[in-house]
Amino acid sequence: MSKNDKFAISPTRQENYPEWYQQVIKASDLAENSDVRGCMVIKPWGFSIWENMQRILDGMFKETGHVNAYFPLLIPLSFLEKEAEHVKGFAKECAVVTHHRLEAKEGGGLQPAGKLEEPFIIRPTSETIIGSSYSKWVKSYRDLPLLINQWANVMRWEMRTRLFLRTTEFLWQEGHTVHATKEEAIEETLRMLDVYEKFAHDTMAMPVIKGAKTSDERFPGAVDTYSIEALMQDGKALQAGTSHFLGRNFSKASNIKFLNKEGVEEFAWTTSWGASTRLIGGLIMTHSDDNGLVLPPKLAPCHVVIIPIYKSDAERGEILSFCNALKEALVAQKYNDAKIICSIDDRDMRGGEKAWQHIKKGVPIRLEIGARELSANSLFMGQRDKDPRDKVVIGRVEFVKKITQILDEIQVNLFNRARKYRDENIKKINSLKEFEEYFREDSGFALSHWNEAAIGHEALAKLKVTPRCIPIDGEREDGKCIFTGKDSKQRILFAKAY
Amino acid sequence: MSKNDKFAISPTRQENYPEWYQQVIKASDLAENSDVRGCMVIKPWGFSIWENMQRILDGMFKETGHVNAYFPLLIPLSFLEKEAEHVKGFAKECAVVTHHRLEAKEGGGLQPAGKLEEPFIIRPTSETIIGSSYSKWVKSYRDLPLLINQWANVMRWEMRTRLFLRTTEFLWQEGHTVHATKEEAIEETLRMLDVYEKFAHDTMAMPVIKGAKTSDERFPGAVDTYSIEALMQDGKALQAGTSHFLGRNFSKASNIKFLNKEGVEEFAWTTSWGASTRLIGGLIMTHSDDNGLVLPPKLAPCHVVIIPIYKSDAERGEILSFCNALKEALVAQKYNDAKIICSIDDRDMRGGEKAWQHIKKGVPIRLEIGARELSANSLFMGQRDKDPRDKVVIGRVEFVKKITQILDEIQVNLFNRARKYRDENIKKINSLKEFEEYFREDSGFALSHWNEAAIGHEALAKLKVTPRCIPIDGEREDGKCIFTGKDSKQRILFAKAY
Repeated sequence: MSKNDKFAISPTRQENYPEWYQQVIKASDLAENSDVRGCMVIKPWGFSIWENMQRILDGMFKETGHVNAYFPLLIPLSFLEKEAEHVKGFAKECAVVTHHRLEAKEGGGLQPAGKLEEPFIIRPTSETIIGSSYSKWVKSYRDLPLLINQWANVMRWEMRTRLFLRTTEFLWQEGHTVHATKEEAIEETLRMLDVYEKFAHDTMAMPVIKGAKTSDERFPGAVDTYSIEALMQDGKALQAGTSHFLGRNFSKASNIKFLNKEGVEEFAWTTSWGASTRLIGGLIMTHSDDNGLVLPPKLAPCHVVIIPIYKSDAERGEILSFCNALKEALVAQKYNDAKIICSIDDRDMRGGEKAWQHIKKGVPIRLEIGARELSANSLFMGQRDKDPRDKVVIGRVEFVKKITQILDEIQVNLFNRARKYRDENIKKINSLKEFEEYFREDSGFALSHWNEAAIGHEALAKLKVTPRCIPIDGEREDGKCIFTGKDSKQRILFAKAY
Repeated sequence: MSKNDKFAISPTRQENYPEWYQQVIKASDLAENSDVRGCMVIKPWGFSIWENMQRILDGMFKETGHVNAYFPLLIPLSFLEKEAEHVKGFAKECAVVTHHRLEAKEGGGLQPAGKLEEPFIIRPTSETIIGSSYSKWVKSYRDLPLLINQWANVMRWEMRTRLFLRTTEFLWQEGHTVHATKEEAIEETLRMLDVYEKFAHDTMAMPVIKGAKTSDERFPGAVDTYSIEALMQDGKALQAGTSHFLGRNFSKASNIKFLNKEGVEEFAWTTSWGASTRLIGGLIMTHSDDNGLVLPPKLAPCHVVIIPIYKSDAERGEILSFCNALKEALVAQKYNDAKIICSIDDRDMRGGEKAWQHIKKGVPIRLEIGARELSANSLFMGQRDKDPRDKVVIGRVEFVKKITQILDEIQVNLFNRARKYRDENIKKINSLKEFEEYFREDSGFALSHWNEAAIGHEALAKLKVTPRCIPIDGEREDGKCIFTGKDSKQRILFAKAY
């Protein structure tokens, strides 16, 4: 166990999980709170992870036929009001722009001036402003489907914020599509849910359960909301991506109509789906340990860090040229749709502290190279998915040949470890009593029978547990709702949630 | 001449340049005005061009040692006030957030509620909010240089807007760097100016003149502002990228201090530099013609469009499989840091109209493939840098082999054509009288002797001409300012400007 190492994260996960989370972010230099209440600064290391997420997700969106566009940041208040449930859902967290300039005020300083006739809301999501464009673009069935995604910042004025998990401003992508038929729109909704699942599994190494939200947990204005739900190491769930079948609610609100093949005008069917910088929070709480951040290689901003160790200037030259040659051999190699990324850390500081900086930042592979490695043409390798002291000697030639294989192994190892944890912390619960005990003591996923009539049940509020989703891949099984005794066709997923 | 073609843009450039500009954007489906005053919707074709610009610029920034990060959208009013010139420069165009929720109002509808203690400004640029982070990050000379870029949306409340050229919200990148010495900061300022010049020349095929701004044209708060200036087809200049040496003005305003090697605390030296979606406006007005958009291949979202032409179902199958095989052979090829992008347009519509859609969208190469081409294993090729009717037969094998060469030729041809136009429209002017005649009748770049004392000269205001820059690569030549008669060391560049 290395948790007592002086460089490790304090507190440990066991001691204080929320504080451990903050300290991992600090130690790995991912992000920090800004001077603007609830808004974070995403620092270069954190932003590189987001860039990797963007690149891979964007490729998946394009493969499924979507293109990107950009719509206004500001939404006229009257647009937001068009869909009643929608505005109700967002009214309490809207940043409102009311003026368009500043003027000198008496006694010095400046004050807002130029009051706007109609206030604008900084987009909390863009259904209504994009709908306004779509109503002009869609005329005929020939214009459909319309498959557009936007990468953007959005703002929801949150009272309690936590880095990545809940911030007033966050970065996300929001897909908005229009279809001629209900069936096609539902198909799209589920296709994009599958894309999120695949991304979570293959790229983030984060196992998720996908399913439909119960009606009380739907996106404001949606007919159906689907989500992927991941289990964090403290037993709490994280909703990691959502896909909404909007029916014709927003096409009616925004007047998105088309002439069908028979020449009859009808309202279109729309969907929207999004994933955000919150995913980074999920990544941290899925893989990281008491030594700091652990990154799946597919998202790591750096795959291999080389640490040269030398005692004299003469040694330095030789070792550095060995390191440089190694780096060149590595970065020439492809890794999935990109390249191996390798850096040499030749800063003048103590070796232990230096290696620990990279451990805390989650770099998948560390190579220490000194006189012994040089003469043996070998490397001293540490992997971030193993104990920091569990280092091995590996031949240089072998390492260069096997680098992508090693990275793939780390990626798979992280996924398997996370899935094992998830599987060990998902419990079938058959009575309210057992349910209450489970969530009072422990935490994790619970699978229980449930009926729509249980919505708003006091036990849920008291335990701070919510229905996470009705698993799509869950087995059908008749039973009785543990809250109401009414009929149930399937167990659904419950948890405390972020 | 094809300008009378029924599909071409109306009006022509000659007839009405500003209206031609709007019509090119409309016909090529780049962007449109939104329902939010002054904000545009960047449509998929336009956004793809921006994605290409981003990818290439981002690569250039990373090659010069920069990393990306993300800072808050909102700036506390008090932060903006810290640098006096800065806030003066932006006060008249600030979108101000004053409330953080909505509440029901009497008589129905919603109104802003939850008044903020301090108003926030939607960033018009981020020097002050980023400076606040930098003041915490920079402690020692070892932390320098700090080289960070941000891709973001910004907002400047403009009274008169034009798609891409001047919009209330626009997308851009803003680099913000911190240095230990004045020399390093100036070096960085000029390095990034060179990056912009290289991007304009090599990627946009848009010739620019780089230089320092005169003091009246500087960025609010900067010690020196440098820009690249391009000449549009109507003889007006477009500032296409700026790089600012900020001296210690913003480090003093934001308290960015460091301990130097001698252990003495001093204020750091900062720079900032930016380029925006305005570049797309410059691209349009540099290359496009009376037939629509013309795109340099390096920025085109599609390099080759294949139009199959058939008369029967039997022919259709054969021709489509010929087209598919051709497409596969093309997209397998590298093109600079990316791939050849090719699409087959098999929509059911008249061939002439279909080809014209691609002409208007600026696709560099069109291939028409019918029975004749199939049997001859050839293609009927049109290039966007030539007259639409100037099409040639080329062998399939030869085309596949030469595709990148053809694209490179188009890229170079566009640059040479634009440079020729620019060179023909830059005139050395030696008297105020001649200057007034030049700008009354015609328009273009003028190179004239000038002295700082000429700032605010009434002739400039009357003619709506501004000093564009003091060319860095311009020859040193003693002379007399044409406005004041005072000494001048060098001619500077004048123009009417967007």
